Amino acid sequence: MSFELTILGCSSATPTRTRHQSSHFININNKYFLVDCGEGTQQQLRNFRIRLQQINHIFISHLHGDHSQGLIGMVSTMHLLGRKEDLHIYGFIEGLKQIIDVQLKYSETILNYKIVYHNLRSDIPEKIYEDDSLTVETIILKHSLPCCGFLFAEKEKPRNIKKEFLEKENIPFEMFNKIKSGEDYINPEGVFYKNEEITYPVHSPRKYAYCSDTMYTESIVPQIYGVDILYHEATFTEDLKSAAKEKFHSTAFEAATIAKTANVKELIIGHYSARYKELDPLLNEARSIFKNTYLAEEGKKYCIS
Amino acid sequence: MSFELTILGCSSATPTRTRHQSSHFININNKYFLVDCGEGTQQQLRNFRIRLQQINHIFISHLHGDHSQGLIGMVSTMHLLGRKEDLHIYGFIEGLKQIIDVQLKYSETILNYKIVYHNLRSDIPEKIYEDDSLTVETIILKHSLPCCGFLFAEKEKPRNIKKEFLEKENIPFEMFNKIKSGEDYINPEGVFYKNEEITYPVHSPRKYAYCSDTMYTESIVPQIYGVDILYHEATFTEDLKSAAKEKFHSTAFEAATIAKTANVKELIIGHYSARYKELDPLLNEARSIFKNTYLAEEGKKYCIS
Repeated sequence: MSFELTILGCSSATPTRTRHQSSHFININNKYFLVDCGEGTQQQLRNFRIRLQQINHIFISHLHGDHSQGLIGMVSTMHLLGRKEDLHIYGFIEGLKQIIDVQLKYSETILNYKIVYHNLRSDIPEKIYEDDSLTVETIILKHSLPCCGFLFAEKEKPRNIKKEFLEKENIPFEMFNKIKSGEDYINPEGVFYKNEEITYPVHSPRKYAYCSDTMYTESIVPQIYGVDILYHEATFTEDLKSAAKEKFHSTAFEAATIAKTANVKELIIGHYSARYKELDPLLNEARSIFKNTYLAEEGKKYCIS
Repeated sequence: MSFELTILGCSSATPTRTRHQSSHFININNKYFLVDCGEGTQQQLRNFRIRLQQINHIFISHLHGDHSQGLIGMVSTMHLLGRKEDLHIYGFIEGLKQIIDVQLKYSETILNYKIVYHNLRSDIPEKIYEDDSLTVETIILKHSLPCCGFLFAEKEKPRNIKKEFLEKENIPFEMFNKIKSGEDYINPEGVFYKNEEITYPVHSPRKYAYCSDTMYTESIVPQIYGVDILYHEATFTEDLKSAAKEKFHSTAFEAATIAKTANVKELIIGHYSARYKELDPLLNEARSIFKNTYLAEEGKKYCIS
């Protein structure tokens, strides 16, 4: 039951020789998602030997080019490779659809598959994806354009019934699923069992929160509280705090403060300004506040066990 | 006096792990041109340590994505790096301008420099660029969309006057430029000197022809006759001739036939289909017709001396 994140691009708006624009590939129990799609994302997927066609859901946080300019390339290549399956694109659709459509129009491309667009709202978080085991919610970020982060969360799984209880009590068949769903139990003799006493959770639902691009905003804390991995942009170091604020970005210090306040298990920082040849200043700054911080590194897999 | 071509991308529509979409960087006497701009072109320029901002003229052959999807990234990055100088874009402008404009609009980007668009016609060749030493003409190609190649040609330079003639005759000052421009000379005693006897050429104007994408068409031969380097697409080998024809592309055999018929000095083939892991079959096929054929290799410089 995998829950893996692969960073495809960790640069901010201007890519560098070694860093690409934003994109994250997520594999949750062999369902494959792409979050943001900067220029060159399809090439990075190839570099890391990830098959494009298995991706059925692409989430675009906002319409700055470094998060979206690679989308038309993905759409085109999926077409050229013979895709038939629907592709779901989540984003601010008015612009995104026009950007895709005008390029398809002038290249005279009629896709041999369907794009299903899902529009985002920029005012309050909403659930935008759900399947039997997973939900994706938007996180409202604070940027110079309408911008959403995304919270990938496993659903609560039915609890397991304790073995010793099963051995002790002769539970009627129809009660099994009810107890697993959290109901208490009263046996034929009237003995009351509280659910927590007779069951245990399978494992806590795993959660990954993607927050890029945003300036420092504590409004996201309740929603991302306790997540296993928080990816939070850290475009600048604290000495450039005013530049960060002006450009609606965060410093490493601010990203770490959010991680600490939200009591997350692990913080990954990324979206580095091209000015940083070495990333240690960003990492050290964040770790001074929140020890369990890691750098986003392209091609590296981050797993939640 | 450099005349150098650097291949940035040699793949056809679908990039591979090691091959990028079409783009050529050309340096002619420290004037810098970009021809086509597939996705990832800005990254390739960085990979090969070529400075983006020195490029003032970008030529887009046609509106298939593998030749144009990197343009918005170039335009955006030039803006982010503080460009002030005009950027000239040559292409089928109705579509190209819409593609750029819609992306600038939705990213709320107001460029701090001006794009000067130059529209191409698709019916007859035309001179689209000229400076003191160079011209660029379109070459009408035969593809599934309106598509132009480009002929970069140095201008004829004034001839040099032979030293022995200068020593023998006392030439009036006003005659110098006339003789250099090709005029004959009659001295005060009435002795006639034919221009070819008293001058010699500096060197023959160097020429580079870019022909991608196109099916086999002999109509381009007169225009590219004798060029120093012909880049001609060779998407397929001859066993896939019918696929080539159907997709308005050429085989290596056909590219070489054009090179031979046009008596060019050197042929570079490229725009390889992703199906070719090894490129020797394409090279060998072309060389069987035209010996002086070379493979387009990304990052390699091809110089005309």
